[in-house]
Amino acid sequence: MSFIQTLNDAWSRTQSLLCVGLDPEPAKFPAALNGRPDAIFEFCKTIVDATAPYASSFKPQIAYFAAHRAEDQLEALIAHIHEKHAGIPVILDAKRGDIGSTAEQYAKEAFERYKADAVTVNPYMGFDSIEPYLAHEGKGVIVLCRTSNAGGSDLQFLSTSDGKPLYQVVAQLAAQKWNDNGQLGLVVGATFPKEIETVRGIVGDMPLLIPGIGAQGGDVEATVRAGRTANGAGMLINSSRAIIYAGKGDDYAQAAAEAAKKTRDTINQYR
Amino acid sequence: MSFIQTLNDAWSRTQSLLCVGLDPEPAKFPAALNGRPDAIFEFCKTIVDATAPYASSFKPQIAYFAAHRAEDQLEALIAHIHEKHAGIPVILDAKRGDIGSTAEQYAKEAFERYKADAVTVNPYMGFDSIEPYLAHEGKGVIVLCRTSNAGGSDLQFLSTSDGKPLYQVVAQLAAQKWNDNGQLGLVVGATFPKEIETVRGIVGDMPLLIPGIGAQGGDVEATVRAGRTANGAGMLINSSRAIIYAGKGDDYAQAAAEAAKKTRDTINQYR
Repeated sequence: MSFIQTLNDAWSRTQSLLCVGLDPEPAKFPAALNGRPDAIFEFCKTIVDATAPYASSFKPQIAYFAAHRAEDQLEALIAHIHEKHAGIPVILDAKRGDIGSTAEQYAKEAFERYKADAVTVNPYMGFDSIEPYLAHEGKGVIVLCRTSNAGGSDLQFLSTSDGKPLYQVVAQLAAQKWNDNGQLGLVVGATFPKEIETVRGIVGDMPLLIPGIGAQGGDVEATVRAGRTANGAGMLINSSRAIIYAGKGDDYAQAAAEAAKKTRDTINQYR
Repeated sequence: MSFIQTLNDAWSRTQSLLCVGLDPEPAKFPAALNGRPDAIFEFCKTIVDATAPYASSFKPQIAYFAAHRAEDQLEALIAHIHEKHAGIPVILDAKRGDIGSTAEQYAKEAFERYKADAVTVNPYMGFDSIEPYLAHEGKGVIVLCRTSNAGGSDLQFLSTSDGKPLYQVVAQLAAQKWNDNGQLGLVVGATFPKEIETVRGIVGDMPLLIPGIGAQGGDVEATVRAGRTANGAGMLINSSRAIIYAGKGDDYAQAAAEAAKKTRDTINQYR
């Protein structure tokens, strides 16, 4: 099954566009997990099981595992999602970018080791840094376009000689030149709804991964109106911290579930 | 000690500008290592010990370890370099790039977990994606500018509205705005000597990490003439595959040593 088909199935079955971001920080975990060697896995697994009824994708951020030597817990977490929540795709947020021979190794890491359904990549090194991921049939490759952080403008908003800012050139390249197999998506931050609309205009129905609602402050209504496709989907709207740290105590699973449900419902209100 | 001081000391003491890139691929290892659970560590350690007399830095590429679940071997390898070859800095080639809160995690991974002396980063997400690394005193942060691969031109060579290609804007930002603490360096590929010269003109004495000689075909003479600083240094000239796979059999340590010595001498001829 193609990645876009996986997404369409998930959106349709779950009636949700919510992507739950998994950015585990042990210092923020409830006290009950203190000292457990697998605390990162346990925390994320609990969040996943609590929020799965309201989510159409999960997005673990690999840095939060790597900083704590917890690659094995990331493997176990993704295996758990595939086993217990089959049909909800996992986007490995790794933002990789390197020359072809190295990109092949990163693609192995994402798709063969972690068994992610898609991975985020950085376009700065061009198409041959993206191509090796596309050799993995059925997998998705989500390219950074317009990121949600303030510094995103440093390069992405630079005007190119044809008068378009760089992020629009990336959107054009992704839609018109790099997407032979229909495996690509783009990252466009919710902090810039006008730019989501512009990107949607360039890329047709290409899936957009949209971080930046929740803790980063992006507006849900503006985001959904700007990014939806004709059938009211086409988006993986990510919230991480506002969901996974909704509760600070032993109620964290329930608090996360409630935050996820509320976010899903708010999104659906504007589809 | 600052990163630039570490580099200056290493260049001066070793009389070498050679950076040995460690891109271990088990399929290319000599038969004697077949089946060893720590083959990646053993191979790299042997290469490191053999080439250390001719190198002023080592650059392990993390993807080659991550694809094989060999993070522990990467930790052991860097510890070995620090212990047995103290004063030769380790550049962790990871090309990370993410929003500030995530970049903090990647910085922990590179500097606290792996104890690298410097890490490569991607500028596409702007300064706030680079700043968290700079909080680690004495560490180096080497920003992608003009990469050695063919696709590098897709974005890096785009003309911006002031008539300069994107990679030159990155060089200007790095030299004039982002380098408060003198911790930055830039990646500029040896496959484009004219562009090395242009970057050198923009960034003064900033260290340049120059991949692309050896297997990628960059010309050593043109590279050195284009990139050297007034004192004939300022460069980490990287060769990976042409050194580490110089020998295919049990002679691989000696073959790597000879290739490293020859590369160092060729570089020194043009300093």
